Amino acid sequence: MADEVILLDFWASMFGMRVRIALAEKGIKYEYREEDLRNKSQLLLQMNPVHKKIPVLLHNGKPICESLIIVQYIDEVWKGKAPLLPSDPYQRAQARFWADFVDKKVYDVGRKTWTTKGEEREATKKEFIDVLKLLEGELGDKQYFGGADFGFVDLSLIPFYSWFHAYETFGEFSIEGECPKIIAWVKRCLQKKSVSETLPDSKKVYDFVSEMRKKIVAE
Amino acid sequence: MADEVILLDFWASMFGMRVRIALAEKGIKYEYREEDLRNKSQLLLQMNPVHKKIPVLLHNGKPICESLIIVQYIDEVWKGKAPLLPSDPYQRAQARFWADFVDKKVYDVGRKTWTTKGEEREATKKEFIDVLKLLEGELGDKQYFGGADFGFVDLSLIPFYSWFHAYETFGEFSIEGECPKIIAWVKRCLQKKSVSETLPDSKKVYDFVSEMRKKIVAE
Repeated sequence: MADEVILLDFWASMFGMRVRIALAEKGIKYEYREEDLRNKSQLLLQMNPVHKKIPVLLHNGKPICESLIIVQYIDEVWKGKAPLLPSDPYQRAQARFWADFVDKKVYDVGRKTWTTKGEEREATKKEFIDVLKLLEGELGDKQYFGGADFGFVDLSLIPFYSWFHAYETFGEFSIEGECPKIIAWVKRCLQKKSVSETLPDSKKVYDFVSEMRKKIVAE
Repeated sequence: MADEVILLDFWASMFGMRVRIALAEKGIKYEYREEDLRNKSQLLLQMNPVHKKIPVLLHNGKPICESLIIVQYIDEVWKGKAPLLPSDPYQRAQARFWADFVDKKVYDVGRKTWTTKGEEREATKKEFIDVLKLLEGELGDKQYFGGADFGFVDLSLIPFYSWFHAYETFGEFSIEGECPKIIAWVKRCLQKKSVSETLPDSKKVYDFVSEMRKKIVAE
């Protein structure tokens, strides 16, 4: 029996994009189901009753939740093609460390670039650049975070690129000016079809962020 | 050459205890180095420059940081004895999900039981019990979270037991009254030497929390 793979997701989610890139890297056919986050489906609520969040991967009816856990699951089940985590335990631990760093820092600080104002926004801009500079230090002169091949850390971070335009516009700062190596790495990632065909248009993300911002930031 | 294993840790850290339990389960000999968290060693700052936090495992001079990442590393390197993660990919994903849930919920909500007052504390007590009840639901009638054997989720959660007395005393509530299955599971875990010899005395943790509380909670 062929595998049934369904992804519950939302187009602008960086976390969902990670899973879409992993599925594309592995060449796995799946059904994509867009969720309305203000009116979540019964299936989403049933399949992720703890967090009630996308993305959720349904593999032959069984749910897997949390993007980095889903990506590791995909890598373990579909082992043959395009390994995402390194095979060496120490390199695996390093890959998990930096993907966890992206989760802990890039998302929260990125969000604050468009939800804060005044002094707090100035501090956030500095903090965001500091976070990217740490990642630039880890990248060094390598092609990708894991070395010559696109892998777990690249896949964890690259979806945020589709939000950079919104971060930069609302935060009034330039990422490329401060972190040219990160942008050079972005361009390398975008040469991969799994990435370029997954990431939504930056302008569309900007419009989406602009609408959210009207609701939550008092002018 | 024998492996050189050094653990930079702090006695009351639940995250450090996870690593100590994993090392004990595997029967790995290591050097324990207690850190003064108000005056961290140069070695700690060098080995975990990103987060500057314990625990850090040094394996033949190479650092591994973040407790759940360290435990997975230990499980992957010392494969032979006492496997901690299940071998089945779906069961592994579930184990990772619940350990991540412990990280995201038990620590933060537990901390609030002794740092909040009034209405906020009342809401926290309810939230803490809700978190434990979700874990009780996942445990069900199994011996341990993964089934018949002590494993990754057990090891992630059990260190918090040494803080329960402090949570209950400052929060003025009873965990056993609300979550008897969790306490029955605690008792099973404590029958393991790796756990009973790792967890510090609850009264000592209470005294430690009491001192911290004086500094951060205005009466």
